[in-house]
Amino acid sequence: MRRRRPAAACLALVALAAAAPATASDPKRPGGVAYDIVAGLTTEVGPRLDGSEAEARARAWAVARLQALGFANVHVEPFTIRGFVRGTDEARLTAPVPQRLVITALGYSAPTPARGIEGEVAYFPTLDALKSAPDGALAGKIVFIDHAMRANQDGSGYGLNVTVRRQGPTIASRKGAIGVVIRSIGTDNHRLAHAGVTDWGKDARPIPAGAVSNPDADLIARNAALGRPMRIALTLTSHPQPNLPSGNVIGEIPGRDPSLPAVLAACHLDSWDLGTGAIDNAAGCGIITAAALQVRAAGQPLRTIRVLWAGSEELGGAAGLGGEEYAKVHAREPHAVAMESDFGADRVWRVQFDITAAGKPLADRIAAALSPMGIVRGAGKASGGEDITPVAQKQKIAVIALSQDGTRYFDIHHTADDTLDKIDPAQLQQNVDVWATVLGIVANEPGPIPGSGG
Amino acid sequence: MRRRRPAAACLALVALAAAAPATASDPKRPGGVAYDIVAGLTTEVGPRLDGSEAEARARAWAVARLQALGFANVHVEPFTIRGFVRGTDEARLTAPVPQRLVITALGYSAPTPARGIEGEVAYFPTLDALKSAPDGALAGKIVFIDHAMRANQDGSGYGLNVTVRRQGPTIASRKGAIGVVIRSIGTDNHRLAHAGVTDWGKDARPIPAGAVSNPDADLIARNAALGRPMRIALTLTSHPQPNLPSGNVIGEIPGRDPSLPAVLAACHLDSWDLGTGAIDNAAGCGIITAAALQVRAAGQPLRTIRVLWAGSEELGGAAGLGGEEYAKVHAREPHAVAMESDFGADRVWRVQFDITAAGKPLADRIAAALSPMGIVRGAGKASGGEDITPVAQKQKIAVIALSQDGTRYFDIHHTADDTLDKIDPAQLQQNVDVWATVLGIVANEPGPIPGSGG
Repeated sequence: MRRRRPAAACLALVALAAAAPATASDPKRPGGVAYDIVAGLTTEVGPRLDGSEAEARARAWAVARLQALGFANVHVEPFTIRGFVRGTDEARLTAPVPQRLVITALGYSAPTPARGIEGEVAYFPTLDALKSAPDGALAGKIVFIDHAMRANQDGSGYGLNVTVRRQGPTIASRKGAIGVVIRSIGTDNHRLAHAGVTDWGKDARPIPAGAVSNPDADLIARNAALGRPMRIALTLTSHPQPNLPSGNVIGEIPGRDPSLPAVLAACHLDSWDLGTGAIDNAAGCGIITAAALQVRAAGQPLRTIRVLWAGSEELGGAAGLGGEEYAKVHAREPHAVAMESDFGADRVWRVQFDITAAGKPLADRIAAALSPMGIVRGAGKASGGEDITPVAQKQKIAVIALSQDGTRYFDIHHTADDTLDKIDPAQLQQNVDVWATVLGIVANEPGPIPGSGG
Repeated sequence: MRRRRPAAACLALVALAAAAPATASDPKRPGGVAYDIVAGLTTEVGPRLDGSEAEARARAWAVARLQALGFANVHVEPFTIRGFVRGTDEARLTAPVPQRLVITALGYSAPTPARGIEGEVAYFPTLDALKSAPDGALAGKIVFIDHAMRANQDGSGYGLNVTVRRQGPTIASRKGAIGVVIRSIGTDNHRLAHAGVTDWGKDARPIPAGAVSNPDADLIARNAALGRPMRIALTLTSHPQPNLPSGNVIGEIPGRDPSLPAVLAACHLDSWDLGTGAIDNAAGCGIITAAALQVRAAGQPLRTIRVLWAGSEELGGAAGLGGEEYAKVHAREPHAVAMESDFGADRVWRVQFDITAAGKPLADRIAAALSPMGIVRGAGKASGGEDITPVAQKQKIAVIALSQDGTRYFDIHHTADDTLDKIDPAQLQQNVDVWATVLGIVANEPGPIPGSGG
C-alpha cells in the first residue's frame, strides 16, 4: 500500500484491537482473532529478535493469549541459541562525493571496530561476477554485490537472489575482502535496508557484511556505470553472541481421539528487529491460531491440532533453530500432517502436497474443497517452511502447503516497514478461512494419513 | 512506485546520465537535460541542506552545468543564513513497552542534551485538541500531536495539516511541554520520517521537536486508544546554527530586446538532508532549465528568460530565504512574469494565473495553447512558490502557476525516500513540454505584460 489507510479505518481497527479479550474467544470472528494477534504482538511486544529479552516477552504474551483463547497444554519449550545482537549500523560513500547509505548488518556479520573501516569499493553486478574474480584480488577492498530481484506471485525471485546474501560474504572473504555490502534482497524502492542472515562457509573468516537499500544500491550502480572510483566507510557493530535464551510456544485443540497422530500447524514468533514482525510472522501465528479455533467452533475435531509458535526462525539457515529444536524434542511422537504459514498475510492462491500415492484421495478431497474458494492446485511438490522442515523430513510427515501471494512480500520482508498497517484484514481473513477448511478435513480424517512422498 | 524499476530500465537511465555532456546542449532532447540535472544533483552532489558544505558544492555544480548548457550571465549571489545542523535524532517509547520510533528533528528544533530527555506522553488527536488544553497543563510532558492528512491531486492535504508542524510546537511549548512529537506531515505508510521547519512564535521558548513516521504514529495512536500510559525518550541533537553561507544561482537565455522586462523561472537548489532532493527540487531545476533551452532552440526569444536556482528554500517560512534575498537584490529590476516549479516531477494538469484584467487576452492565449496538452484552466488565482513570492508580491509581477499532480508527492516529500528512482522520466518530459509552451509565449510577448491582480 502506498497510501496510509484513512483515519476512520485506523480507528475502527484500533477499536477491534481494544476489544481483543471479548472477541478472542468468539469463534464467529476468527478474522478478529488473527488480526488481534498481529495487533497485539506488534503493539504490545514489538520487534522480537531471536534470543532477545523481547522474544522472551513475546513468549509470555503468547502463552497468555493461547490460554485466554482456550488452548490446552500451553507451554514453552526453552532452548539456547547463538544469537546476534544489534549495535550501530552505519555506512557512507566517502568518494566520489560523501553520501549517507542506509544499511543494516547481515545476521552473523563480524563487527567492525567502533571507529569503523574504510576501503575502496570493488563493484560486482552479480554473484557470478564475484565468483570469477581471482583469489586475493580483493585484498583490502570492500566488495559490493548487485543483483536484479523481481517481485512475483510465487516469491521465486527470493530463491534466485538470496544466494547473494547467503553465499556472497563468504566468497568475498575468501578472496581477501575486508568487508562486503550487498543490494538488499528486496523488491521495494524505499530507503530501508532488508536484514537477513549470511551463512559463513566452513573455514571462511567472517568479515563485516551489510545490506543497503535499493535506492542506495542504485546510487552505487550509477557511480559504477560512470566509472567513478568509490570508497565506503562502514561502521557495523552488530555482532554474534552465544548462549541466548529462546523457546518454542505450543498449544493444542485436543482431539476426540488422543491416540491418533496430531496435525501440526506452525508459524514463528520471533522477528527481525528493524520492523515489528507483522507480516513476518505475527500474521502466520494469527492465521493458524484463528483457523484452529474455527475448526473447534464447528465441533471438537477427531485429531488434536497442535499449534507451534516457533522461536528463533530468523537466525536459522535452511531450518529454523526453533524448528530444529521441535524436531528433537518431539522426535518420538507421530504427526499426521505438517503445515506452516510464513509468507505474510496476503491471499492464498495455491495448494500443493507432499504426500505418498496412498494419500491422493485425501489430497483430491482437500483440493476439491478449496476449488470453490478460488485456490488452484499446483503441479509441484509442497515444501514446508523452516519451522516444520526438520520434523517433517525426519519423520517423513505429509506436508500441505498453502501458497500466499508474494507479490509485495519482499517489499517489506525484514525491513523496518514490517508493521501492522501492512496487513490487509480481508486477505488475512481469507487465509484463516482457507486454513480452517484444510485443518478441518485433516483433523477429522479417521483413516491413517500416509507420509510424505519425498 | 512500489516496485523497483527493472534493471534494464535502470541501466538505460544510467547510460542517459552518463551521456550528460553530449546531450546537455542538444535542444532536441530537453527531457534528457531535465533528467540529467536530477541524476547529476542526486548522484554527484546528494543531499544539500541550506547552509551546508554540500549546498556550496551544489552551487559550484549548478554554475558549471548552466555554463555547459550555454546559459549567459551565470553567477552566484551569496548570502548568509541562520541554518540548522543535523545531529543524532533518536526516539523510543519506553512505556508501555520499549519500541524504537523512527524520528527526525523539525527544522529549528531546540536540541536535547546529549543524554536525551524522557517524559510522559500527552496525546492530542488534533491541533485543535492541543489548543484546548489549559495553560500549564502540559508541564514536564512530551506532547504528541496527531492528524489525518490525505493524499490528493492538488496537494491541499498539506496546507490543511502542515499547521501541526508549523504551529504545534509553539503551542505545546507555551503550555509547558518539555518536548513535542508530531505525526509526520506525509501520506505514505513507510518507516521514514518527514522533515520540515517549525515556526517558533514570538516569545515562544524553543523545545525539542520531532516528527515520527506514520507507522510509528499509528503505534502511538493505538496505545492512546487503548488507554495505555506512554513515555517517550527523545535524543535530538540537531540544532540551529547562525552565519552559514548560502546563495542563489542565476543564468539567462538572453532576449533579442534586453530593455524588456525578463521572464523569471525559479526552482530551488537546496534540499532536506534525509533524501537527495530529487523531487524536491532537482526536478524543478531540471524542468525550468530544459524548458528554457527548448524555447531557445526554437529561436532566440524576444525577452530574456532568467532561471533562478534559489538557495535555502527549505529553512524558510512563507518565503524561502533565497527568494527573499532575490527580491532584495533585484528590487529595482522590472520582471514580466514570475513562475516556479517546486512540486515534484509528476505531470502538469492545471494552469492558473494571477494577472490583472488587462492580462486576460494573454492568459486566454496561454490556456488555449495548453488545452490540447490536456491541461485544464483552474478557477482560482495562481499562487507563487516560496522562491518567487517575495519578488512577485513586492513588484506585483504577474504569476503563472502550472499545477503538478500531487497525489504521491507527500509520500516522499522531505524523507530519505526522495531519490532518483522516484522520477518518472515520461512525466518529467511532460512538465518540460508544458513549461516550454508557456515560456515560449510569454518570452515572445511584445506588448507590456500587466502585473498581478492581487
